[in-house]
Amino acid sequence: MAQRKLLLLPGDGIGPEIAAEVSKLIAILNDVVSAGFETETALVGGSAYDDCGEAVSDATMDLAMAADAVLFGAVGGPKWDGVPYDKRPEAGLLRLRKDMELFANLRPAICYPALADASSLKREIIEGLDILILRELTGGVYFGEPKEIVDLGNGQKRAVDTQVYETYEIERIARAAFELARTRRGKVTSMEKRNVMKTGVFWNEVVTRIHREEFPDLTLEHELADAGGMKLVRAPKQFDVIVTDNLFGDMLSDIAAMLTGSLGMLPSASLGKPDAATGRRKALYEPVHGSAPDIAGQGIANPIAMLASLGMCLRYSFAMNREADALDAAISQTLEAGIRTGDIMAEGCTKVGTGGMGDAVAERF
Amino acid sequence: MAQRKLLLLPGDGIGPEIAAEVSKLIAILNDVVSAGFETETALVGGSAYDDCGEAVSDATMDLAMAADAVLFGAVGGPKWDGVPYDKRPEAGLLRLRKDMELFANLRPAICYPALADASSLKREIIEGLDILILRELTGGVYFGEPKEIVDLGNGQKRAVDTQVYETYEIERIARAAFELARTRRGKVTSMEKRNVMKTGVFWNEVVTRIHREEFPDLTLEHELADAGGMKLVRAPKQFDVIVTDNLFGDMLSDIAAMLTGSLGMLPSASLGKPDAATGRRKALYEPVHGSAPDIAGQGIANPIAMLASLGMCLRYSFAMNREADALDAAISQTLEAGIRTGDIMAEGCTKVGTGGMGDAVAERF
Ligand SMILES: CC(C)[C@H](C(=O)O)[C@@H](O)C(=O)O
Ligand SMILES: CC(C)[C@H](C(=O)O)[C@@H](O)C(=O)O
Repeated sequence: MAQRKLLLLPGDGIGPEIAAEVSKLIAILNDVVSAGFETETALVGGSAYDDCGEAVSDATMDLAMAADAVLFGAVGGPKWDGVPYDKRPEAGLLRLRKDMELFANLRPAICYPALADASSLKREIIEGLDILILRELTGGVYFGEPKEIVDLGNGQKRAVDTQVYETYEIERIARAAFELARTRRGKVTSMEKRNVMKTGVFWNEVVTRIHREEFPDLTLEHELADAGGMKLVRAPKQFDVIVTDNLFGDMLSDIAAMLTGSLGMLPSASLGKPDAATGRRKALYEPVHGSAPDIAGQGIANPIAMLASLGMCLRYSFAMNREADALDAAISQTLEAGIRTGDIMAEGCTKVGTGGMGDAVAERF
Repeated sequence: MAQRKLLLLPGDGIGPEIAAEVSKLIAILNDVVSAGFETETALVGGSAYDDCGEAVSDATMDLAMAADAVLFGAVGGPKWDGVPYDKRPEAGLLRLRKDMELFANLRPAICYPALADASSLKREIIEGLDILILRELTGGVYFGEPKEIVDLGNGQKRAVDTQVYETYEIERIARAAFELARTRRGKVTSMEKRNVMKTGVFWNEVVTRIHREEFPDLTLEHELADAGGMKLVRAPKQFDVIVTDNLFGDMLSDIAAMLTGSLGMLPSASLGKPDAATGRRKALYEPVHGSAPDIAGQGIANPIAMLASLGMCLRYSFAMNREADALDAAISQTLEAGIRTGDIMAEGCTKVGTGGMGDAVAERF
């Protein structure tokens, strides 16, 4: 069996705790189905900064570029509030996304039936929810220049960020959206602010053309991002795949995650372009939730989003769909069995810690 | 009694229908409390474009600048999808905001008790909700330059929008937030993306300084805009005043409005700086909802957001707090009486049209 190279970047806060549960699953995959995973571990975020003065070192970047997939925990925390802007924990994640050219960020928002009552929304609004937010991840206001704070000399400063999109960036994320929709319910909703932003006008134009020229059999709808956000809160099941830019995607995917009542449960995949020669596609998998510094080190964090991220990794990087299905099923069964970490605790359920949850999923896997 | 000059800009779609209900109330105010309102009416948006080729004419701008307050309906619709970018209906609204320098956009999100069940959120999450989103309205990515689509000549184009904030713009919106919080529960939550945007870093810095130097007795909290959006969906009652930039404010205020289940119900006020000599403050009042072209002309649109916008106008432009309270009470009583337009219809209630709703509120006023 060929070796499969994984890079594990646990990061900060609860990152190391939830990453430990993923390591358990990887060991099982190696034992039981001889998956041949070879795992290296490295620092990222604040912990990397403490170690080497950068949020991700060049050596770690080399490992990431060479890996078949990167499993990422979470970065950030108040400890690093004062570090220089380009060395803040998030800079490590942003460099990984940019240098690996991970332009397609898949954020499924699904509602686990066992957790439907944990949502702030009414059960009937979110029960059975299964939508996919596809967020452009290497462009837009995250990376455009100028991005600066300038002293105007008269007691005033001016801060600037720049949102930039070129044709090819929108074309490739649009194609990814339609290809994903084809494996789902065939509908793509594109969201932008074309009534206010030139990048919105342009986004709309390019997505419309790609639909007409290459995917005319699928359904394309357009929403203004503000109206789309409202519809997401009002009646999220009307959507299938939502494709949107980096900043709107950040907001909308977090809101979608929160709708499900399952924020600690949701994984994401960030994918690059398939290599023309090898077909290999750079990829990073991470939970949608953050580093939760307030509960770090207590062994109470919910590892499910991280485990589900491994599930996406099996599916998208290694075409191990059987194992991915089995992992998703093990997570659902664990929840059906009433096993809960504190964040999703409910009456009549059994409360476990991070390790207990990881073990419970592993047992059912 | 001094004359009070109102400019009524009904706009497109359902705008004229809901504006007609406001006119009824204004007539009552003139009759019953001799309010002395003098109303002029003009075109804006698509209807202005159809009339004169601009989304707002210079003559209308002159009226707006001279008025004590502008009452604005809504603009836009598919009819004008093809018009040049700088003449699209929204350009009329944006010019009014910019030229009148209406930097402070107040968007209350309140939950009318009679409508709590209309929300997609659970009753206990939103019952009694009363928060205020204060959105910066004349800066940020809405107006920054460059804002363009450039042909790169190799089959590629590049679209650019620019988010710009200067010190004074953040200072004045921060002050407005603290002043509003002082009349409420004393808490301001500032939202930005300082982990990704330089304007976010700067926003955070200026708001923090204004708090420390001028309002140390009030509470200031900071949230990343994505996390803040999640908290808004999860537990909105934790907030009092939320202050944020133009684009985040657009998204977050719409989501907050949707939470209440009362989108057709929510008003907004856009205020300029008090004039040093006269104390007069330019102001525009408009519903948070849009022009709803799909139901325009049928007499079924809900006029309550527009009536409540008149309420804000009485309060903020004319210090007619008694009349404003009476109008708010009339709206609540109408809802308690089970009178409903189609958008908020519920079992056992009486369905009325736009005019019926306006009359019902007027009767109780
Ligand atoms: C940590 C931060 C830079 C990041 C982002 O804004 O993209 C996060 O919010 C996310 O959604 O992955
Ligand atoms: C109509 C449009 C330009 C406007 C905006 O984006 O500001 C609207 O969505 C709003 O929130 O007032």
